[in-house]
Formats: sequence, C-alpha cells, structure tokens
Amino acid sequence: MAPRGIPEPVLIRGTGLLGASIGLGLRAAGAEVLLHDPSPSAQAVAVDIGAGHPWEENCPQPGTVVVASPPDVTGQVVIDALQRFPDAVVLDIASVKVAIAAEVQAAVENGALSPAQSARYVGTHPMAGRERSGPVAARGQLFTAAPWVVCAAEGAEDRAVVAAEEIARTLGATVHRMDAADHDASVALISHLPQIAASLVSSRLQETPASALALAGNGLRDTTRIAASDPQLWVQILAANAEEIRRILYGVREDLDRLITTMEDPTAPGARLDIAQLMAEGNAGHARIPGKHGAPPQAFAVVTVIVDDTPGQISAVLHDVGEAGVNVEDLRMDHSAGHEVGMLEISVLPGRRQELTDALTAQGWKVV
Amino acid sequence: MAPRGIPEPVLIRGTGLLGASIGLGLRAAGAEVLLHDPSPSAQAVAVDIGAGHPWEENCPQPGTVVVASPPDVTGQVVIDALQRFPDAVVLDIASVKVAIAAEVQAAVENGALSPAQSARYVGTHPMAGRERSGPVAARGQLFTAAPWVVCAAEGAEDRAVVAAEEIARTLGATVHRMDAADHDASVALISHLPQIAASLVSSRLQETPASALALAGNGLRDTTRIAASDPQLWVQILAANAEEIRRILYGVREDLDRLITTMEDPTAPGARLDIAQLMAEGNAGHARIPGKHGAPPQAFAVVTVIVDDTPGQISAVLHDVGEAGVNVEDLRMDHSAGHEVGMLEISVLPGRRQELTDALTAQGWKVV
Repeated sequence: MAPRGIPEPVLIRGTGLLGASIGLGLRAAGAEVLLHDPSPSAQAVAVDIGAGHPWEENCPQPGTVVVASPPDVTGQVVIDALQRFPDAVVLDIASVKVAIAAEVQAAVENGALSPAQSARYVGTHPMAGRERSGPVAARGQLFTAAPWVVCAAEGAEDRAVVAAEEIARTLGATVHRMDAADHDASVALISHLPQIAASLVSSRLQETPASALALAGNGLRDTTRIAASDPQLWVQILAANAEEIRRILYGVREDLDRLITTMEDPTAPGARLDIAQLMAEGNAGHARIPGKHGAPPQAFAVVTVIVDDTPGQISAVLHDVGEAGVNVEDLRMDHSAGHEVGMLEISVLPGRRQELTDALTAQGWKVV
Repeated sequence: MAPRGIPEPVLIRGTGLLGASIGLGLRAAGAEVLLHDPSPSAQAVAVDIGAGHPWEENCPQPGTVVVASPPDVTGQVVIDALQRFPDAVVLDIASVKVAIAAEVQAAVENGALSPAQSARYVGTHPMAGRERSGPVAARGQLFTAAPWVVCAAEGAEDRAVVAAEEIARTLGATVHRMDAADHDASVALISHLPQIAASLVSSRLQETPASALALAGNGLRDTTRIAASDPQLWVQILAANAEEIRRILYGVREDLDRLITTMEDPTAPGARLDIAQLMAEGNAGHARIPGKHGAPPQAFAVVTVIVDDTPGQISAVLHDVGEAGVNVEDLRMDHSAGHEVGMLEISVLPGRRQELTDALTAQGWKVV
C-alpha cells in the first residue's frame, strides 16, 4: 500500500547516497520505485541493495520524478523530466535552490517549457548526509528527524507541493516551507559558512609540525571536522550560491581585518576592547543556535567520567546513569594523546548534575 | 607521602578552576598545599573544597610556587614569587609562554631579578579546561590524559624542570617539552585560530532569522561550539600571542580574499579550480590531525543507531555493543530539530562495522 499523495511510480534520477536512500525509504513505505543513473554501475548497486527497479524505456510513465543528480546538472535533468513526462510531478533535492528555479524559469522564457509544465516542479532540500557517499552507504532511515526544506515557486501545482511534502514525511523528515531565496540565504550561513571556515582553518595545518598537532584537543577537532568534505561537491554548492556566500564573506573579512589590526598593535588604545567585542559578538551569535530538538538553547551540565579504552566500559557507565534515572541529553568522547583512557562527557539537565555525580562516584567511577 | 621531586610546601597563587584543580590533585597525591588568591572568597571556596590550606605570612617558606593567576598578571606574580621566596621553584600555567619569559628576562636586565633567581622559573601550560570556571568547578582529575607543555628556558635549574614535570605527571598529564616560541606558534594554530574562526562564524549568526537557525545541524554546532568562551580570558590570550596569531591570520586573509574573488565571478576561467583547491587544501590539513590517543589519523567506520529520547536507551544500545564484543572508538549524539529521537553515532574499527550493524539489527535496533 503506497503512501497517499505520492503519484507512482516514483522515478529517481541519480542513485548516489541520497537518491538510493530515498528509494530504500519509499520502497519500505510501499511505493513503487524506478531508478536511473547515467553510471550503470551506480544504478546496478542501487538496484542490488533494493532501492528500486531499473528504469527502462518501456516502463510505465512515472507519476513522480525525484532528481537526485549532482547539483551542476540538476537544473537540466529537471527540465528534461518536465518535458519527457507530461503528467509527472518533478522535484529535486539539490542543496542550493535559487539557481535551479532560475534555470526552470529561463526554460519557460525561452520557450523550452510551457508555464504549465514548469508548475509541476517543486524544489526541495533534505538536510541529511553521511561521511560516506555512493549508493553502498544508502540507508532508508537517513532522513529520520532531519529538516527537509520545500521551496514551492508561485504558481506551483498543489499536487506537486503535496507530493514533495509527503515524500519528506514518509521518510521521517520534518518539512520546512521556505522560499528559494530564504533557503539559499539560510544555508549560506548555517552550512556553507561553517564549511568554508573549517576548510580555511584546516588549510593552515598543512605545514604544521607534528609536535604542534600532538597538542590538538576537541576545540580543533570540532572546528575542523567537516573540512574532510568532498571538494568536487562543494565546488558546485559554493558556486551555485555565490551571491549569498559573498555577502556573508564580506562581513567575515571586515571582522577579520578589524582583528588583524588589533593584533598588529595589541597595546593600542581600544585594541583590547575591540578583541573583547569580537568575542562577545561570537558569544551572542552562538547563543542563538537552537538546542536539542529545536528547543530553546539550554546550557546542559556536563558530568565527565574517565573510562578505560576497553569494550563495555562506556556501556557500563551508561547503565549506571540509567539506573540513577537520569536522562542523557548529549554525549561525547574526549580523547587526548598519549593515554589509553577516554573522557565520557555526559550532558544532563543542570538540576541532575550533583545527583548523577554522587551516584556514579558511589559506583566507583572516576568523575572528573 | 609526597611525590618525589616536588619541593614542599606547594604554594598555589590564584585559586580559580585551574589553580584549585592543581591543589586538589596534588593533595590527593599526598603533597602539602597552600593557597593564596587576591579574592578572599575565591580562596575560601578553594580551601572549603579541600584544595589546600590558606597561605599566611607565618607559614613555612614554599618549596614550589605555582602561579595560576590570569594571564595578564602572571609575569608580575612570577617575578614577585622569585623575589620573595629565595629558594622556591616557580612555575606558571598561563596559556601563552613567550611574553611571560620575556617579562622575567626584562626583570633580569633591569636588575629586579638576579640571573640565579630567574633560573628557578619554568613556564608550563596544562592544556585542559572545562566549560565552567571558578574553584567550584575544580576537580583533581581535570588534567588526566591532557597534554602539559613544559618550556624550560636555557639556564633553568634542573630541579625546577623536574618539579614542573613531576607536577604534570602526578596530575596524570603527559609532558611535552618544547621551547616557548614553538609553544606559542603551536597554540596559535591549534587553539587560538579555531577560537577565532568559531567566533567569526558565530558573530554572523547574530541577525539570522530563527527559521534559518532551525535548519542548523552538527556542522554548525561543531564549528561554533567554542564560540561560547569567556571574552575577558581570550582578550588576554590573543593579545599575549598577537605576533604568532597575526602571521596565521595573514594567511587566512589571503585564502579568504582568493575565495571572495572566485565568489564574485564563479563562472570566470579558473574560478572553480580555485575553489576546489581551497577545499582540497582543507582536506590535506585536516588529514594531519592525529587520531585518538595520538595514534595516526584513522577513518573509523560509523554505525548510526536511532534512539528514543528516554533514560536508559543509550545505555541499552551500548550494552548490546559490548555484548557484541566491539570496542567503541568514539561516540556522539546527533540531534535534529522537531523530533524526540536522537542518532547515536558509534565509531568502530572499519573491519567491525558490518558485524556490529548485524548484531544491533538482530537486537531490534534501527541502524541508519
């Protein structure tokens, strides 16, 4: 029994990580899914893992086309699908939305598409990913609890918008309606700027002596984690959102210049106030990032426990946390060089910290 | 029985988080500890939590003085201690080292200290901290498994170097010998630059609409986590290491300018190659950050499990991981807005991934 509101069969064009994951999730929900990828091997892997059946010319016309191609070619694949399948709802999942909507609009203006054809298109952006790519890494539950932005242009058909939202919900995501320009401005700040910052910081580490890197702690690791991302994908994303990113980078450069000026003469009148202001502005911006599950930002209390690096230790600590009846709000490991122990940082509601510390200490754990 | 090589009593000047934690740790190891802080209430709290006894004029002369004052006044407190206590080894724990060594050297040059007095000084930097400050947050095990840099100037007395290293080891830290200039260059890259980047990114969020922030994921959270740091402390740190930081920021500005130029015309010849190079340089730098326990960087495989937000769930998953005999190499929670579930990301050796996925799936867990 297929989910309501999603015209079938669903043709997924592009069977990388995201396309194949959408296929797996929709099939698990009972939908009929067809797959097509210009790379026969990517398509074959996606078919093998059960993401759908191979699309062939004699297949029934798709009711929905999900374009999951690389960002660079997404616009053209969307236009092609609108032309080829006269009744299909067409949506894409690329991470930048204005440029693709503009390509569709340009096709209307130059007569390649009719306005009615373009009304079957809805842009979307599921904000999920993994550290691995390709269909082998695909999982039907990749989108669970992830935001999925839906950008319907003025004049988009209702059934196209409904199909896009139903696909997102069927896959367990949360729908965020937004216009394309707001989407692109938002991701420039919350996704593209952090990526650029992580890459700029990491780039400075290329010539760093190993003795310096041996001192690295979680501050450096956290700040640079996403610097391991795929350059080819990010070239496409950054280039497609250049205008919004540029605007933000002008602001960053202004702040950076101000900081460099103070660093050139840190004893000059006002220099220290300038540095303090920059840090305080960072505090203020950071405080606006929502907390867990979109709740207001909340300072959890952290209880840090020293654990040996052997199987079962972490689970034993958390078992005792559970016995104490305290919920784990967040969790992370802190590793340091040179010791075969780790620090397990357990975030709890501030009112429960002392109670948990006492309970774990009583069980013989080393609470830092 | 006091640890060998640490002349007693140990006088700790400055009883904030770090000073009080050192006191707690040294007392636990059997050392006699005296405390002094210009703030009577900070000193009283440190005494109350058992970090040491209050220092008074009629106390025995200290054998070791640990200066744990704010960075701005550390140099002066070190000089004062070298003058007042004619036999004491004096060390400090401020996070920037050249400026303090230079203050001591200047005191020798202007006759305030004799060369013999200055030879009793050793600069150190324990690389540990917590998200909270003040003596109430102090813990004797704060330094467990943390790097502790020891910077002995040429001509420093052996017994002073030994005392510094013994204190670090007694508190469970790993000693890194380094000269002061290398230390300052290292922390500029691995600590001060990430702090600046996190603050610059966070600063851009001050005016961001809530609808954009609702899309924030771990990428933004990780990149900005340390932006919540104390501005007053960081003003002192950045100003004291201005020369090294400036040098690094010139490089960052060059990269940023290059990126802005490409963003101004992303279709220009070479623009995309430029972006790809910047990202690839980020990849290369990031790959140099050492892995867990200082081991070579290693790409762990991640098994992601969906857990409900109720007490005991995480412990139940990790219990099953332990039963499967698989060691947890790293652990983190991934939260998304709008859903009362979390993703538990369990890092394991790549060869164990499939086995763990199968074992957890068989136990009924949703493995993404």
